[in-house]
Amino acid sequence: MAEGEEVRNKQVLLKDYISGFPKESDMYISTDKTIRLKVPQGCNGVLVKNLYLSCDTYKGLLMQKVEFPSVFTSFTPGSVITGEGVAKVLDSGHPNFKKGDLVWGITGWEEYSLITAPDSIFKIEHTDVPLSYYAGVLGMHGMTAYVGFYEIGTPKKGEYVFVSTASGVVGQLVGQFAKLMGCYVVGSAGSKGKVDLLKNKFGFDEYFNYKEEHDLDAALKRYSPEGIDIYFDNVGGEMLDAALLNMRKHGRIVVCGQTSQYNVDKPEGVKNLMCLIYMQVRMEGFVVYDYYPQYSKFLDIVLPCIREGKITYVEDIVEGLENGPAAFVGLFSGRNVGKQLVVVAHE
Amino acid sequence: MAEGEEVRNKQVLLKDYISGFPKESDMYISTDKTIRLKVPQGCNGVLVKNLYLSCDTYKGLLMQKVEFPSVFTSFTPGSVITGEGVAKVLDSGHPNFKKGDLVWGITGWEEYSLITAPDSIFKIEHTDVPLSYYAGVLGMHGMTAYVGFYEIGTPKKGEYVFVSTASGVVGQLVGQFAKLMGCYVVGSAGSKGKVDLLKNKFGFDEYFNYKEEHDLDAALKRYSPEGIDIYFDNVGGEMLDAALLNMRKHGRIVVCGQTSQYNVDKPEGVKNLMCLIYMQVRMEGFVVYDYYPQYSKFLDIVLPCIREGKITYVEDIVEGLENGPAAFVGLFSGRNVGKQLVVVAHE
Repeated sequence: MAEGEEVRNKQVLLKDYISGFPKESDMYISTDKTIRLKVPQGCNGVLVKNLYLSCDTYKGLLMQKVEFPSVFTSFTPGSVITGEGVAKVLDSGHPNFKKGDLVWGITGWEEYSLITAPDSIFKIEHTDVPLSYYAGVLGMHGMTAYVGFYEIGTPKKGEYVFVSTASGVVGQLVGQFAKLMGCYVVGSAGSKGKVDLLKNKFGFDEYFNYKEEHDLDAALKRYSPEGIDIYFDNVGGEMLDAALLNMRKHGRIVVCGQTSQYNVDKPEGVKNLMCLIYMQVRMEGFVVYDYYPQYSKFLDIVLPCIREGKITYVEDIVEGLENGPAAFVGLFSGRNVGKQLVVVAHE
Repeated sequence: MAEGEEVRNKQVLLKDYISGFPKESDMYISTDKTIRLKVPQGCNGVLVKNLYLSCDTYKGLLMQKVEFPSVFTSFTPGSVITGEGVAKVLDSGHPNFKKGDLVWGITGWEEYSLITAPDSIFKIEHTDVPLSYYAGVLGMHGMTAYVGFYEIGTPKKGEYVFVSTASGVVGQLVGQFAKLMGCYVVGSAGSKGKVDLLKNKFGFDEYFNYKEEHDLDAALKRYSPEGIDIYFDNVGGEMLDAALLNMRKHGRIVVCGQTSQYNVDKPEGVKNLMCLIYMQVRMEGFVVYDYYPQYSKFLDIVLPCIREGKITYVEDIVEGLENGPAAFVGLFSGRNVGKQLVVVAHE
């Protein structure tokens, strides 16, 4: 394509606000719109070609008509789905970016995006690792694991760590951070394939398929008999309630996500909060964007580990933007194994 | 009575484990037992005459057959109810205490107690304030307010504080600490008499009777329109869920008690924990006993304030051990106004 050319832009849009779990039919693919591959005069935005897009359960939350009290805002029906991704700059009105740069950050589920808030994207400096990694382990998700585990979890060598959704990109990394630190790590996941990853790829000490356990409290007592110093909570609900019963004195619960509650009509309600008193537990939420100034520190730690194979990363990659909705919806039935990505284009 | 005399010992005992809210009939008064007013040979305990006993809702929790994971243990049917109180030493086998000393700490609901774990009692050094204060504002409860507000709440001048059970001994003090610090303080309580205290005695900026509010979220938005930086939570359940919706960025929830959930068959379940993420909130429980080494620091701050009238304290005192069960049960219907105490004897 020629610079400044006007092209058709394939897009994934939200049909209407959803209730319950997202379905493929809640989104639609459109090629109605065209886009000029040039940043409009006077705009300090960046025009990118999208390469990889990240599928995340939190989008299921944003598809609902909810008024969020903070940084989060619902998607608007008829608008393009947005989220983390990797893209190539085609044109830039911003001094930090130039044509040809590779970037990671918030972009659209479409072939081309005009990013008008370039403070949400970051230039990729190291390309000796797969580019897709920046839509996951080397991007927002990796930072989430890093901040959640080290800053909020304040781990110490020898502590007992439990991670839910342990085979997801955040869980994978938290588990491996914990092992590097000399902790005992237990992970839960929702399928045999995922549990196999915990066992064979990420070095978790113990692992279980929570769908096969009718009593999560008993499962935790079996797999982490000494209790839990750090619970890295990606799911909330019933699993959080069980973890609360197993916290050790001065334990910490890192509230990273509450996936199990995002798309249910009636949230389960957490009943064992008295355990925060009994065991003097700190439970803390965080928003990773606040910690982006620490990104280079994170990269200095994680990038060498990935190059040297000390940290393993497993992706589940689907080809084609048109297959994005199915890949995303598949998260909710646990179809993916590893970090779910969509390839829009190979550079 | 003569030293070493054997006397009848009136006692309040638990009849059987309870389910639901405690009733007077769950306890019984007995004068069957006698006690020799002397510490047995070779015992390092302390023999005390009980003067004031504190009525606390947490006893309702301990009357149930529950296995607690930590410092708490259920009462045993047929045994004397225990709890915080003020007493006078009649005989001591422990070097830290001598006959005539006044002490506060854990004692029994009976006329005389042999305290075999004297590390749970503390000598009263300052008697220019009412002795009963050591069964409340100058004892465990005062320390709870102090530790919860300053250590866990980490308040800053100008912040927005909300306290539930605000007319109780802990709530009274937290509200006044917050005012002394230059915070804006809202309190909730469960009767007109209690709310009047918040308004007329303790200087709360806003106050409401939660029993008259059908929508607690709306009430909080009305009385604390700027949101909440510190929620000092004494009740849990529905109020905690409403407070979560009103937390400000980097807010703190001090988990001091979950009174509303102690004696219900089906705990309500807290549904808005996602707000911990949205607003990057820290929620933390604590056990006051861990902070007892700071007691003298606490006293240095609070005692002068009480002497100078900068801190006000309201008690609701009932005469006679035999009236203890009714006074205790009255807590659950909110009958008391101010800190509920029972006088066993006036020195």
